[in-house]
Amino acid sequence: MDNKKYMQLALEEAIKGRYQTHKDPIIGAIIVKDDQIIAQGHQDNFGQDHIIKRLISSLDSAQLQGATLYTNFEPCASFSEGGSCTDLIIKSGIDQVVIGQTDPRGSHAVERLLDKKINVKVGILEKEARQLNQHFNYFYENGRPFITVKQTNSLDHMVSAANSPRVVLNNPAVINRIHLERANYQAIIIGSSTVIQDNPNLLTSVETDFPPIRVILDRRGRLLNHQGLNALNDEKAPTWIFTENLNLKKINFKDHVRVFEMSTGTLGEVLDLLRAEEIQSLYVEGGPSVEKSFMDEGLVDAIVDYVKPIYFGEIGISGPVPSRSLDLENIKVETLDDNIRIAGDVKKPVKNTDAYTEW
Amino acid sequence: MDNKKYMQLALEEAIKGRYQTHKDPIIGAIIVKDDQIIAQGHQDNFGQDHIIKRLISSLDSAQLQGATLYTNFEPCASFSEGGSCTDLIIKSGIDQVVIGQTDPRGSHAVERLLDKKINVKVGILEKEARQLNQHFNYFYENGRPFITVKQTNSLDHMVSAANSPRVVLNNPAVINRIHLERANYQAIIIGSSTVIQDNPNLLTSVETDFPPIRVILDRRGRLLNHQGLNALNDEKAPTWIFTENLNLKKINFKDHVRVFEMSTGTLGEVLDLLRAEEIQSLYVEGGPSVEKSFMDEGLVDAIVDYVKPIYFGEIGISGPVPSRSLDLENIKVETLDDNIRIAGDVKKPVKNTDAYTEW
Repeated sequence: MDNKKYMQLALEEAIKGRYQTHKDPIIGAIIVKDDQIIAQGHQDNFGQDHIIKRLISSLDSAQLQGATLYTNFEPCASFSEGGSCTDLIIKSGIDQVVIGQTDPRGSHAVERLLDKKINVKVGILEKEARQLNQHFNYFYENGRPFITVKQTNSLDHMVSAANSPRVVLNNPAVINRIHLERANYQAIIIGSSTVIQDNPNLLTSVETDFPPIRVILDRRGRLLNHQGLNALNDEKAPTWIFTENLNLKKINFKDHVRVFEMSTGTLGEVLDLLRAEEIQSLYVEGGPSVEKSFMDEGLVDAIVDYVKPIYFGEIGISGPVPSRSLDLENIKVETLDDNIRIAGDVKKPVKNTDAYTEW
Repeated sequence: MDNKKYMQLALEEAIKGRYQTHKDPIIGAIIVKDDQIIAQGHQDNFGQDHIIKRLISSLDSAQLQGATLYTNFEPCASFSEGGSCTDLIIKSGIDQVVIGQTDPRGSHAVERLLDKKINVKVGILEKEARQLNQHFNYFYENGRPFITVKQTNSLDHMVSAANSPRVVLNNPAVINRIHLERANYQAIIIGSSTVIQDNPNLLTSVETDFPPIRVILDRRGRLLNHQGLNALNDEKAPTWIFTENLNLKKINFKDHVRVFEMSTGTLGEVLDLLRAEEIQSLYVEGGPSVEKSFMDEGLVDAIVDYVKPIYFGEIGISGPVPSRSLDLENIKVETLDDNIRIAGDVKKPVKNTDAYTEW
């Protein structure tokens, strides 16, 4: 009972580090002795000392003797300077460690703690713990980023009207929501024609040192003639161009822009490049043909559909109609003034690229 | 202040008669004297004595002397046996009448009451009063039924999948909602191909003596070969067939079935037939081509869209894509388990057929 209570507090600590831990999981930790919390905290920035190390350092050995550590995520066993968190726990006098979820990268923390006769409980509030690091877990378990396709549609599934001034589908409440939502992803992906047409900033409104990277798919090199676009100039987040046109490599872009060479231009190659850069999560922002490709290949884990309650009718340009059916679960519906947000997880099976076996 | 309070009570009385007054408006009435309610009630069945007459009859002349009558709907001035409600009010001793909305058919009640020096207030909570009899008002003001198009779609605006067993789009909560919703309309309209394919009952779950009439559009007479359909046999609600195929007239259908001859088969003709039968409200249940016709001709006042959060993809059959854009307002969103109901009123202008000038 108390295990759940303290794990819940560890989860609440962990979430305070959201948006700041970048490629590391978010982690909260609580040290309890005689049913009193004697230290608590969260991992609060990428590359800083691990929270478990910091908490142990803040206490003396008398305090730590016989204490219990609660953490939503298995302690590190090998990577920290000055000893891993596991080493520090073993030396500390802590005699019980309660863990929400194990490290999907395969830590040896649990077995090393057990070796030293430290009492270890694993899987307390595991579902909640895994949800907290959903994208991190997904990446290491499936070998590709967690992929969410975002759409903005009319009721008749049109994304805009042809032959007319571009209709603004999103009301301000939706725009705010999207700007928040982007911060949950490590990269945004968008087709070059959509970037050229709309010239979006693709930024998040969340304050973070790690705004999502703006990945532009530009196989043919259309950006060569559109070098004034916001994402290529604003320096507010990294911009990556994935292209088969090597002339883009010769352009003297600002430092936030990187050009990646593709040879096949397939989504598989796109995901290989993202995997190599350890991008754990991807927010697909369009246009419809890019979204359709992800859907057709079964490379969608979640869908967020912003619906404007109008019918464009026959002048509309259709949203993506996938070649296969997709069924959603865990549906969440929100109204945002007169627009509607419908989100859900894609029911499996979907095709994954090969998972990494080593890291 | 008190006027609003008593009118609010009259509206609450009125709604108790919902589903029972059929072609009459729903009406609630309150008689107040010395700030005490001395009688209250609602119109509770089509063709029965009017509620105002009944309330006045229940009181003696001492009670009525100097009393105030509150009613959401202008009293009748000419049609009741034993004198109109207006006549009875004039004789009763009531010296003030507070009215929510005037009769769109053009009553002379107000001017007759004023002639007799009775104090009359019109338009108290008028918006709410008009909403209560929205379809009735619409019919007499626009000369055609209020038309709601109901759709059930996937997220990619498909109504079903071709080449596969018919997928049930509606979950049980949606089905219940539709069965309730039908009771708000005097007729349901549906194309013969949809009836033949799905064989629906098209009934309401609301107990009422006036279930919506099931209107089947069957220009060519396809029902000749499908005489076993539920709606043609179950006798639980009237069924009207609108057709150009006169062979249908020769079929010995049960008594609940009527066959109407059409000469042009246009929606204009459909609405003329419905208007002649004084059908005040119409619930368009499909299929997509019937719905598209209503939308294309601007003959839609409200849309109810039940969305199942799946993508049918390319195997899907598209829902209606109108030839013109439609914009909605007064959006209401509800979740029904894992399905979503999106309802809204079509923004004007839409084309109306000519309003009647006399009734």
